[in-house]
Amino acid sequence: MGWCLKFVLSKEIIIKCEEHILVPAMVNQLALQASSLGVEGEGIWLALGTIGMLLGMFYFIADGLDVTDPQMNEFYVITIMIPGIAAASYLSMFFGFGLTEVELATGRVVDVYWARYADWLFTTPLLLLDIGLLAGASNRDILTLVGLDAFMIVTGLGATLMKIPVARFAFWTISTIAMLVLLYYLVAVFGDAVSGSDPDTVSTFNALRNIILVTWLIYPVAWLVGTEGLNFIGLYGETLLFMVLDITAKVGFGFVLLRSRSVLGGGEAPTPSESAADWSHQTPLY
Amino acid sequence: MGWCLKFVLSKEIIIKCEEHILVPAMVNQLALQASSLGVEGEGIWLALGTIGMLLGMFYFIADGLDVTDPQMNEFYVITIMIPGIAAASYLSMFFGFGLTEVELATGRVVDVYWARYADWLFTTPLLLLDIGLLAGASNRDILTLVGLDAFMIVTGLGATLMKIPVARFAFWTISTIAMLVLLYYLVAVFGDAVSGSDPDTVSTFNALRNIILVTWLIYPVAWLVGTEGLNFIGLYGETLLFMVLDITAKVGFGFVLLRSRSVLGGGEAPTPSESAADWSHQTPLY
Amino acid sequence: MGWCLKFVLSKEIIIKCEEHILVPAMVNQLALQASSLGVEGEGIWLALGTIGMLLGMFYFIADGLDVTDPQMNEFYVITIMIPGIAAASYLSMFFGFGLTEVELATGRVVDVYWARYADWLFTTPLLLLDIGLLAGASNRDILTLVGLDAFMIVTGLGATLMKIPVARFAFWTISTIAMLVLLYYLVAVFGDAVSGSDPDTVSTFNALRNIILVTWLIYPVAWLVGTEGLNFIGLYGETLLFMVLDITAKVGFGFVLLRSRSVLGGGEAPTPSESAADWSHQTPLY
Repeated sequence: MGWCLKFVLSKEIIIKCEEHILVPAMVNQLALQASSLGVEGEGIWLALGTIGMLLGMFYFIADGLDVTDPQMNEFYVITIMIPGIAAASYLSMFFGFGLTEVELATGRVVDVYWARYADWLFTTPLLLLDIGLLAGASNRDILTLVGLDAFMIVTGLGATLMKIPVARFAFWTISTIAMLVLLYYLVAVFGDAVSGSDPDTVSTFNALRNIILVTWLIYPVAWLVGTEGLNFIGLYGETLLFMVLDITAKVGFGFVLLRSRSVLGGGEAPTPSESAADWSHQTPLY
Repeated sequence: MGWCLKFVLSKEIIIKCEEHILVPAMVNQLALQASSLGVEGEGIWLALGTIGMLLGMFYFIADGLDVTDPQMNEFYVITIMIPGIAAASYLSMFFGFGLTEVELATGRVVDVYWARYADWLFTTPLLLLDIGLLAGASNRDILTLVGLDAFMIVTGLGATLMKIPVARFAFWTISTIAMLVLLYYLVAVFGDAVSGSDPDTVSTFNALRNIILVTWLIYPVAWLVGTEGLNFIGLYGETLLFMVLDITAKVGFGFVLLRSRSVLGGGEAPTPSESAADWSHQTPLY
Repeated sequence: MGWCLKFVLSKEIIIKCEEHILVPAMVNQLALQASSLGVEGEGIWLALGTIGMLLGMFYFIADGLDVTDPQMNEFYVITIMIPGIAAASYLSMFFGFGLTEVELATGRVVDVYWARYADWLFTTPLLLLDIGLLAGASNRDILTLVGLDAFMIVTGLGATLMKIPVARFAFWTISTIAMLVLLYYLVAVFGDAVSGSDPDTVSTFNALRNIILVTWLIYPVAWLVGTEGLNFIGLYGETLLFMVLDITAKVGFGFVLLRSRSVLGGGEAPTPSESAADWSHQTPLY
C-alpha cells in the first residue's frame, strides 16, 4: 500500500486505495494512471472492460483464422460476437452514453448503466447457444432457454429502471427466479443431452456449465448489494465487480470452449458437425 | 347496486359503481376492497390482470408437469411463456412503470401504458406460433405471419405515441390493415394447412382461430374509442376492457389448446410430432 | 431556373432553389408545391420517400399476386416487407415522430431522425436474407451476416445519439468497420456459394451485390458529411440523399430481384426451392 501515499494530494484516490485494498497492485496502478489522464471514478473499469473484451475478441479471431470446418467455424463466429458486442457496450458506457439517472420514490438518485442490459440481451443467448450446440441439445431446448434468458434480462432491466422500491425488489425476484429455472434447465436438460457424448465434450461442457453457474449466480447478488439495490457497495466497486464477472463469463468462457479438443475436432471425438447432423434427424421446429 | 351505498362517503367510488353497472358484483367488490387498500382507479384491473395471468401460467405449468413427449412439451412451453410475459407486463403497469404521458398537438394529455406493446410484441407471435404449429403450417407461413404481427404492433405503438392526431389515426389505420391481412392469412393459409388433419385438430384449430378473430378485432376498436383515440371511454373502462381481452386471448386460448385431444395426443390423431416431421420434409428456409 | 423567380416573396424557398440547382426540375416543382401546402424543409423528401416506398410495395404486391410456387412466394413476401417497413418509417418521420434532438458536448444541437435506424434494423437483414437465399448460402452464413448487420446498425445508432464528438466518431468507425467486414463476407462467402449456380442466378446475384456495395458504402459517408458528423451538408440535402439511397437500395433492389429469370423460375435455372432443398441436407443449426 506504500505507493498510494505518493498521491496524498488527491483525497479521492487515497480513499479508493483504502477501499479496494484487495485489488492487485497492477490494476490499481492502472487506475491511478487513468485518473491522472482525466478518467474518473468507475470509468477506469469501463475502460479496462473495453480493452479486455477487445483483447478476447481479437484473440478468438486470430485463433479462428485457419479454421475451415463449417461447424467449428460456427463456434468461432458465436464466440467472437460475444466479446465484440460487450466491447461496444463497455465503450459506450465509458463515453457515458449508456448511463441514466433513476430517481427513486425514496428520493435517492441511482446512476444506472442500462447499456449493460442491451449487451446482456444479446450476449447471454449467444453463450447459451454455444453451450447448447456443444451439448448437442435440441433447437427446442436451446430456444426455451433463450426465451427464459430474454425474460430474465428484460425483467432485470425493469427492476433497474423502476422508481418504487417494492417494485424494484419484486422484479429482481422475478428475474432471479427465471435465472434459477434457467440454470436448473441448463444442468438437467443440457446435461442430459451431453451425457452420451465423448469424455472430452462432457468435460468441456462441465467446465463451461460451472463458469455459467458460478458467474451468473453472482450477478443478482451484485445487483442486490450494489447501487441498484441496497446500496452497500458504491458504483465504483460494483462496476469493477461486473467487469470481472463479464470478462470471466464471456472471454474466460470462450477461451475454455475454443481450447477444448472436442471443439477442435481432435481424436475420434464427435465434432459439432456430427452432433449437429444428429439434430437434423430430430425435429427442427423453428 | 345496493351495496354501493355503503361507500357514499367516497364520491369517486360511487361514480365508478354507476359507470360500470354491468360488471359482475364480485369483481366490483374486489375493486372496492383494493380501493380501500390504496389501489386507485385502473390499478385494480392491472392487479387483476397480473393475478389472472399468474393463475393461468401456474395452471399450465401444473398441467404440463407430467408431459414427456417433446412435441407436446413444446406447446406447453410456448403456452406457459405467454401469460408469464403478460404477468410481468401487467405487474410493471400496476407499479406505474410502463406508463408515460403523451401531450397531443391539441393540448390533451393522454396517459399511455406503453408496456402493453412490449408485452404484445412477444406474446402475439407466440400465440401465432402455437396455432401455426397446431395447423401444421410451414415455417415460412408462420414467419410471414410473425413479420406482419410485429409490423402491426410496432405501428400500433407508433399510433399511440404520436402527437399529431392525423398521424395517430393514420398509423392506427396502417396497423389495423396489417391486422386484417394477418387475420385473412390466418384463416386462408393456416386454414388450408389444417384441412387435411383429423377432426379433433381441425376443431381445436377452429376454436382457437375464432378466439383470435373475435378478441383481436376488438383491440383496434378499444383503441379507437378509448383514451388513445376518440376518448369516448376513460382510462378506467379501457384498462378493464383490455384486461378482459388479454385474459381471454391468452389464458382462454391456452386453456382451449392444452385441453384438446389433438394436443394431448389421444386417439389416432396425428400428434404435433408427426406434423412437425412433415415440415422437415418441406423446405426449412430459416 | 426561371420558374423559381415566381416565388420571390418567399426568401427561404428561393435559397433552396439555389442550393439544389442540380435536382431535376420536376422534383423541385413538387417541393415548391408541397411547401405551399405547408410542408417545410426536408419534409418534402420524407413525403416523397413514403410515396416511393408505397409505390414499390404495391408494385411488388401486384407483381406477386399470381405467384403460386411457395419458394418464389417467399422472395415476394420478403421483398414486399422491405418497402412496407420503410414506408411506415418514412411516414412517421414525415409526421415528425421519429425525430429527436441531441445536444452535443460542443453545444451544437443536432436534429436526428432516429426512426431510420428502426427501419434499417429490420430492412437490412431482410435484404441480406433475399440475396442470401438467391445465392443459396447456408443458414449459418446468412445468420452471421445478419448478426454483423444488426451490430452495424446498433453501433451506428449509438454514434448518432452520443453527445461527445470523439465518442460519435469512434462508434461511426466501429459501425463502418462492421460494414466493411459484412461487405467482404457478402462478396467472398455468398459469392462462393452462388458460383455453382446457373448464369442467370449468378448475373442477378452480381447485380444485387453491386447495388448493395455501391449504396451501402455511401451511407457512412453521408453520415460523416451530414448533420450527424461534420455538418458539411444540411439536414435538407442529407434527407434527400438518404431518401434516394433508401429507394435505390430497397425498391431498386427488389425490382432487379423480382424481374430476374432465376427468381421467376424460367428455364432450367435452379429455383430457390431447389437450392433451399440443398440446405436442408446441410446442417440446419438454428
